[in-house]
Amino acid sequence: MWPDLRNLGGLQKIHFLRRTKLAQRGLATNRCAFNFSLPKIDPLSRQVQMVIKAEQFQLDPNSEGTLQQQVQQLVCDGVLSGRFLSGERMPSSRKLADWLGVSRITVTLAYAELVANDYLTSRGRSGYFISTSAPPPHVGQIRLPVPNTVDWQKTLAKRYVNQSSLVRPPDWKDYPYPFIYGQPDAGLFDHDNWRRCAIEALGRKNFDSMTKDAYEQDDPKLVEYIVRNILPRRGIWARSDEVLITMGAQNALWLCSQILLGENRFAAIENPCYPGIRDILREAACKVAQVDVDDNGLPPERLPAEVDVVFTTASHQCPTNTTMSIDRRRDFLKKSIRNGFVVVEDDYEFEMAFQRAPTPALKSLDRAGTVVYIGSFSKSLFPGLRLGYIVGAPALIEEARALRSLVFRHPPGQLQRTTAYFLSMGYHDTMINRIGQAYRRRRSVMEKAIRDNNLKISSRLDQGGSSFWMRAPPGINTSALARELRNSGVVIEQGRAFFGPEQENHDYYRLAYSSIPSAKIPEGIRRIAAAMR
Amino acid sequence: MWPDLRNLGGLQKIHFLRRTKLAQRGLATNRCAFNFSLPKIDPLSRQVQMVIKAEQFQLDPNSEGTLQQQVQQLVCDGVLSGRFLSGERMPSSRKLADWLGVSRITVTLAYAELVANDYLTSRGRSGYFISTSAPPPHVGQIRLPVPNTVDWQKTLAKRYVNQSSLVRPPDWKDYPYPFIYGQPDAGLFDHDNWRRCAIEALGRKNFDSMTKDAYEQDDPKLVEYIVRNILPRRGIWARSDEVLITMGAQNALWLCSQILLGENRFAAIENPCYPGIRDILREAACKVAQVDVDDNGLPPERLPAEVDVVFTTASHQCPTNTTMSIDRRRDFLKKSIRNGFVVVEDDYEFEMAFQRAPTPALKSLDRAGTVVYIGSFSKSLFPGLRLGYIVGAPALIEEARALRSLVFRHPPGQLQRTTAYFLSMGYHDTMINRIGQAYRRRRSVMEKAIRDNNLKISSRLDQGGSSFWMRAPPGINTSALARELRNSGVVIEQGRAFFGPEQENHDYYRLAYSSIPSAKIPEGIRRIAAAMR
Repeated sequence: MWPDLRNLGGLQKIHFLRRTKLAQRGLATNRCAFNFSLPKIDPLSRQVQMVIKAEQFQLDPNSEGTLQQQVQQLVCDGVLSGRFLSGERMPSSRKLADWLGVSRITVTLAYAELVANDYLTSRGRSGYFISTSAPPPHVGQIRLPVPNTVDWQKTLAKRYVNQSSLVRPPDWKDYPYPFIYGQPDAGLFDHDNWRRCAIEALGRKNFDSMTKDAYEQDDPKLVEYIVRNILPRRGIWARSDEVLITMGAQNALWLCSQILLGENRFAAIENPCYPGIRDILREAACKVAQVDVDDNGLPPERLPAEVDVVFTTASHQCPTNTTMSIDRRRDFLKKSIRNGFVVVEDDYEFEMAFQRAPTPALKSLDRAGTVVYIGSFSKSLFPGLRLGYIVGAPALIEEARALRSLVFRHPPGQLQRTTAYFLSMGYHDTMINRIGQAYRRRRSVMEKAIRDNNLKISSRLDQGGSSFWMRAPPGINTSALARELRNSGVVIEQGRAFFGPEQENHDYYRLAYSSIPSAKIPEGIRRIAAAMR
Repeated sequence: MWPDLRNLGGLQKIHFLRRTKLAQRGLATNRCAFNFSLPKIDPLSRQVQMVIKAEQFQLDPNSEGTLQQQVQQLVCDGVLSGRFLSGERMPSSRKLADWLGVSRITVTLAYAELVANDYLTSRGRSGYFISTSAPPPHVGQIRLPVPNTVDWQKTLAKRYVNQSSLVRPPDWKDYPYPFIYGQPDAGLFDHDNWRRCAIEALGRKNFDSMTKDAYEQDDPKLVEYIVRNILPRRGIWARSDEVLITMGAQNALWLCSQILLGENRFAAIENPCYPGIRDILREAACKVAQVDVDDNGLPPERLPAEVDVVFTTASHQCPTNTTMSIDRRRDFLKKSIRNGFVVVEDDYEFEMAFQRAPTPALKSLDRAGTVVYIGSFSKSLFPGLRLGYIVGAPALIEEARALRSLVFRHPPGQLQRTTAYFLSMGYHDTMINRIGQAYRRRRSVMEKAIRDNNLKISSRLDQGGSSFWMRAPPGINTSALARELRNSGVVIEQGRAFFGPEQENHDYYRLAYSSIPSAKIPEGIRRIAAAMR
């Protein structure tokens, strides 16, 4: 007589389970047939007015949030799980407060909030009842084996898994000596002012900028600030129609590669380089030349003659931190005009040039419009924000906007506006200053510790940045070293990820100091040196 | 002797202009050479301690924000534009308050904030000074002609502009009768609770979820809520590893098409259909069949035998609003198993089924795992949020995650966590309830007005949705009609965008009621009928 649960459709199952539950509570009626609608319980048709007992509520000791929120959530859960039905009477605020061991005002406030949100209705002195217009119940956790008859190996037309990515343990924060790169440091981030700007951006006057579809136009305040204040710091003057907001530098690189490259095009990248760009170019299906960098960055004379697009990190070569000299920049740009290639400049880390005044961007020397510039807020704010930008010719920006719209429409307005406020109130500049000072201190501690332990820095020490590119002594495999060091609580980044997979280069490693406090640095470096011996 | 500005690089130019300014102020020194570093002004080496006058400050009457914020911003602007130099003395708070006509406490609080952010230092009774560690100056607005020698027509490898998009005037809010679709209604959105949840998500305990790189894993709270509460409402049971958070349904459709389709694959879409899917499939370079829908949605018997992937909006066919019957759904799924095609179900609007209990999703009947399900928060929350999700086999989800990571990494953590709170506090359900009630009212006003004016609804009136699909009388071109109506303050959506460009179908139009209050509806409809005569 009872159906086999596995043969029932989803809502049939809800229905069945609800009916069972109702039966257990003596409330089942024959009105409930096995059809495809959620059960409607008419409170007036019931014989007995059910009373919900205080004992049905249990605070979860692990729960987050205020007590008031927890009470609210318990009631919502009860309604949405179908345990509390509309018309049922809630325990009085005094009884529930006594039972839960919280103050009565907590329960009263929670009830008031639940009334405002239609979960409860107040009937004067009779008390609080589950509202007849409360949201309909969902259902609890039921886990079924996932059906699958599809041969996904055959069905998937294209594969994207197995990208070369940096190997970083997800629990890196639990290691005492994390020399890892590009992750936010809670001690340096201006959380209070970020929050303040976010609250401003969440205000009613910003309803439109937060909620609307906006793929034709980015937040004008954000674009204006970038054009007026951020780019001029890099020596770049641009108009608003030459800027597109992206979901970080990764997204900017991807958009550029999709527009500028294809099967019959030829790209050049630095070697070693940012691993993300290799993955992006693999999908772009173009020909790729890897050009070895030297102490002065990417040598233009090594570029193949037929190249169409060159990707470079001129200001802080990733991962070696080299800054390309002005002379080489000029040669580079001359060659781009002569050979007719476009340069995509990834200026992912410019704000972190604290050692001396930053070299202007390659783009600032561009008198021919051959440079497409990419900036990012991932390092100066935080990577989870996913905001960056492209600066380029209007023809390119227009295509990038259309492609962006096709793929995900636009970066969320709420975050664009928050960032615009944070920038225009001067907090961003203050924070960069503060981060720069902290990095400068950490860097000198790093340099001393590296020297004291006879480790070998492989990059020039001219600019700032937030890492050292290191070369291990001959015979040491840095990938094995990185694995071994985790046992001593140290996380380093193996250099292999920055080279092409065919190169199997295990000679280098990267030591970043953006997430390790100064006090921990000497011991961390000592352990690395010890592991090498 | 003075260089031609046009021949100077960006920072040279800043430098030159600053030097000129310094010269005008009698402060130029020979230390400033034309090199590539920002000028460093040592306040101790100056002969005269400059005093900034209150008169240098002007409140902008159009400025937003509190007076305190405006004062703060004026000082930041002065520093970042290089007008105020470090070591210079600020006017006293009393003087500045008098000059600006604001209260002294406003200026004092602004100064205190500026000290906290390193723009000012306080030297006890001597007053406030521009801090020596203040952020370095940017530069003002200088506009140069944009150089360009690149032939972009030749350089761009792929084109994305000219997608078929809905034609909606950007200033639609200024029209008194906007029958436009899918835009948020400030009167129905629960702004206060959204803001509250956002503030919670911005708290220190959520630092990690907000700031970190998170492409391996979506917000576990959000995924859990979707799996436990949202999907079961649609009759779907899924595990967390079968869900991927996307940047809205558009992004979900794009990811699926990139993974499931390619040159040798064959896709089928409904006709008419959501315009975005046509654009997406054009880029996927696959073969596409357009299958005409009937009164019961997409007829499975019209699907080509060799099709690999079928895109459908079974619950609310876009744009006709038809709901596919249970029998047809069963046929559809049987055929998908027999012919071996995958179904991508775009359930973009399910929450808006208020006419009767919603039909469960096609996915809820799926016993073979052939259905990939797409959901979105664009309609139940707001489109600017850019959050949606894919539910599918782990093999597909894993590929979609890898592709997402390549293209933009991940949807921002701050918004995922805010949404998770909004859902788990029950606010989402309350809001859906409220929107449903408002839409039900508007819909009955619409139906009456349409009937009174003898207009012709072309879709079945069974489910909810937020629009009517309308057919114009013979001889009327709805694209011309839409243009003409704007002169009478009415915005309708021409039906042509939902058909393939080759079809040149101008017979239909869409009337949505998600952004027009009930009181405006009768007159709006009357004007449409009048324009047709």
